[in-house]
Amino acid sequence: MSKINKQLRPKAETPKGFRDYFGYEIIRRQEMLKIISDVYELYGFSGLESSAIETVDALGKFLPDIDRPNEGIFAWEEDNTWLALRYDLTAPLARVYAQFRNNLPSPYRRYAMGPVWRNEKPGVGRYRQFYQCDADTVGSASIMADFEICSMLSDALEAVGILRNDYIVKVNNRKILTGMMEVSGLFDPKNLDHKLKERGIVLRAIDKLDRLGKDSVLDLLGSGRKDPSGDFTEGANLSDEQVSRILSFTSAKGNTEEKTIQNLRELVNGSTTGNKGVEELSQMLELSQAQGYFSDRVTVDPSVVRGLGYYTGPVFEADLTTEFFDEAGVKQTVGAVAGGGRYDDLIKRFTGQEVPATGISVGVDRLLAALNISKETNREPIGPVIVTVMERDKLNLYQKIVSELRAAGIQSEVYMGNPKNFGNQLKYADKRNSPIAIIVGTDEYNKGVVQLKDLALGSKISKDATLEEWKSQPAQKEVKRESLVGEVLAMLEKTKNT
Amino acid sequence: MSKINKQLRPKAETPKGFRDYFGYEIIRRQEMLKIISDVYELYGFSGLESSAIETVDALGKFLPDIDRPNEGIFAWEEDNTWLALRYDLTAPLARVYAQFRNNLPSPYRRYAMGPVWRNEKPGVGRYRQFYQCDADTVGSASIMADFEICSMLSDALEAVGILRNDYIVKVNNRKILTGMMEVSGLFDPKNLDHKLKERGIVLRAIDKLDRLGKDSVLDLLGSGRKDPSGDFTEGANLSDEQVSRILSFTSAKGNTEEKTIQNLRELVNGSTTGNKGVEELSQMLELSQAQGYFSDRVTVDPSVVRGLGYYTGPVFEADLTTEFFDEAGVKQTVGAVAGGGRYDDLIKRFTGQEVPATGISVGVDRLLAALNISKETNREPIGPVIVTVMERDKLNLYQKIVSELRAAGIQSEVYMGNPKNFGNQLKYADKRNSPIAIIVGTDEYNKGVVQLKDLALGSKISKDATLEEWKSQPAQKEVKRESLVGEVLAMLEKTKNT
Repeated sequence: MSKINKQLRPKAETPKGFRDYFGYEIIRRQEMLKIISDVYELYGFSGLESSAIETVDALGKFLPDIDRPNEGIFAWEEDNTWLALRYDLTAPLARVYAQFRNNLPSPYRRYAMGPVWRNEKPGVGRYRQFYQCDADTVGSASIMADFEICSMLSDALEAVGILRNDYIVKVNNRKILTGMMEVSGLFDPKNLDHKLKERGIVLRAIDKLDRLGKDSVLDLLGSGRKDPSGDFTEGANLSDEQVSRILSFTSAKGNTEEKTIQNLRELVNGSTTGNKGVEELSQMLELSQAQGYFSDRVTVDPSVVRGLGYYTGPVFEADLTTEFFDEAGVKQTVGAVAGGGRYDDLIKRFTGQEVPATGISVGVDRLLAALNISKETNREPIGPVIVTVMERDKLNLYQKIVSELRAAGIQSEVYMGNPKNFGNQLKYADKRNSPIAIIVGTDEYNKGVVQLKDLALGSKISKDATLEEWKSQPAQKEVKRESLVGEVLAMLEKTKNT
Repeated sequence: MSKINKQLRPKAETPKGFRDYFGYEIIRRQEMLKIISDVYELYGFSGLESSAIETVDALGKFLPDIDRPNEGIFAWEEDNTWLALRYDLTAPLARVYAQFRNNLPSPYRRYAMGPVWRNEKPGVGRYRQFYQCDADTVGSASIMADFEICSMLSDALEAVGILRNDYIVKVNNRKILTGMMEVSGLFDPKNLDHKLKERGIVLRAIDKLDRLGKDSVLDLLGSGRKDPSGDFTEGANLSDEQVSRILSFTSAKGNTEEKTIQNLRELVNGSTTGNKGVEELSQMLELSQAQGYFSDRVTVDPSVVRGLGYYTGPVFEADLTTEFFDEAGVKQTVGAVAGGGRYDDLIKRFTGQEVPATGISVGVDRLLAALNISKETNREPIGPVIVTVMERDKLNLYQKIVSELRAAGIQSEVYMGNPKNFGNQLKYADKRNSPIAIIVGTDEYNKGVVQLKDLALGSKISKDATLEEWKSQPAQKEVKRESLVGEVLAMLEKTKNT
């Protein structure tokens, strides 16, 4: 490779809105996903991993941000076909089901976990690549399937360590929302396109109620809203009476589940679709309570909408009530960590035939962050035992020592950097959170011994200490070469228990 | 959603060159990756998961196919920056190391596993998204680091179940290849760009020796090669003497490792770089043999080149000698399942300072396919227990049964499809490879019993059998409702052992 001019050097930067994950973060995520997928498997779901890239046609346009139709996704043209990275795991499922429906069991119950990509404005804690973990039942119109998604979600959250009363699964029904539109004059069953745009604005406004507060939602239902950055979002231009109807709907939650159902029934009175929605919600509630998922786990919440455009019946959301202090020191609650619902028309796009389907998507990064908040200690795990390099002619001996340790299941390595500066070897051990450094110089070799340095104890001494200072610390122990493995195991056992 | 016109329906197809993975395939891959990452962790490596998207600048252009500079990757422009999906896990590692070098331990020893994307012509078994599993040591110039990558690779292959003598880790050194170029008049240490293009052609030709055979390689070293599809690849236009020197190099392997080293030493005689390469190879060999990695596991092979452009020293490749019959019934060997080497200049692109690094990349899909070949039985695992739906008013009872089963750790589900046709319920159970169907109708309910159907035994009866025919089979057992879980556990135990 020829000399590289400084001007031509690429920037060593993650692209804007993307991030990298290191060490323990990855292991924690894998462990959490394993627990969730074990719950999904127990419920009879089986895995699917679709390709990260889909045709834009197959993905469809169901992102909340319908104001920018072709935005929101990462797309490019390849051999006259527009390809894109998946923005969720549901659109690919619809494609997979339509493609393989003759070979898949019916109903098809699958779970999926993996990254999705959204071409959105990045912000604090908002990345353009993030993990989802989904479960869906395709080919079942039964409300039992919707109920089961909610009970499974509840089980999964408890399995990963969220305590009862620290979360709640909220359920609602899009048909009730449609009924509300109908009685507010925003929906005409005989003309499905009637006020389509206004309805979209209303749904997105209600969906943002928790995040933006009531005043902003009033703006969105009325003449529009300017956000703090100055960006303007068009409003639905509703009349005062329409606004008041819609707000009475979002506050329809009663003291009991039965009271909420009754309130909703009254509010959609006159709309066939609305009544059907209330009926479905009532059935889900009955199944939940019969199976012991009471209001402390699964509850009806009329303010739940879910952003995606493809839902047609029950919608669900899991909220964590865990509190934490944000960067500005303000107390916050985690909020939604999972959402989903029934989408009976998504597969019809491909096949022309209606295929009922329902499912849930867990926001993995957010759930993981919430779990980290609730854990008292969250320290990095213990790193590898480090065999320091004292003499270059003893590399074979050092390698021999690590193979013995590894054979005993002990994570270990010979220091691979330039061994000249002993201090660098100790700094390295410190950065790796190593429990023990092993030292064998000519003296030790001739005496048939090794020095074991307890780095947890020794962490008090200066990083720039000389070899002599280091050796003089009380945390150092001389043991016979042949009893090395046993001594290391004993020290590790002690470290674990302190 | 309004009625969708047939003409407007999207095609339910994976984009060309991509595929989906189902159920057991995913679990098998996860299990294999867990075993490999456990070996990497034991050696002291820690995980890194970089973002799938990088800037094109950061990725650089190191793909073998240098004839099409901007091809080979999936790239698109976003806000005046060209972004691309990573084509391997090494280029992102270089970016991450350069970006975070002040906070990372030095040396930085990381492993990574995940999909990579290549915009290449798809073919049988060649996909444009595939999994890699890498381990690299960054910041170590020591040959010990290269040796360790090879011994770790050997350990990892044995850990996933590849038998000794069914694989071989081959090592070579790019400096020897450069020395060979120098003595063949294709490299001038005073002018690094001298015959750069010809050297590229020679390296790629040698790399393809196994796959294309000697005659095609002769064409590539000479005036060029037309492949069976008619595509023409430019040749290096070497003289007969140059060709013969290069071929003598690829056949320099002797009966013993020492003999091979001696042959190579003679062939590069006169080239300082070449001699250094032989010296490094000899040191690696010494370390290998001292640690018990003899010629049946790690061996010198002068024909190993590796396709990527960034290697500067030792290069490695793991080949499986496992044989299988391809679709045409022809006996084949699996070939290379891992490759890597030392790349001392890759990070310099970002920082201007040389950072020595070495590592390995395991081709996960290929290794997995090889493992499947070598397994005698490869049947799908047992599916969930299915509770059939006999009466719609008993849904709560059916749900109660599955919660009891799940509480006992038994994968189970209530049939979620339309329950009217009992045959469909059995077809479903069959497709899911269910071990047991549970039947509770009004009779059973009134008697306080349930019917357990052993589906493994019962698989002989017609899929279109009526409920009565089904019930009459000997594989059916009536048990008390309260002893259901125990009876199911006992039946599952029996199924496992047959």
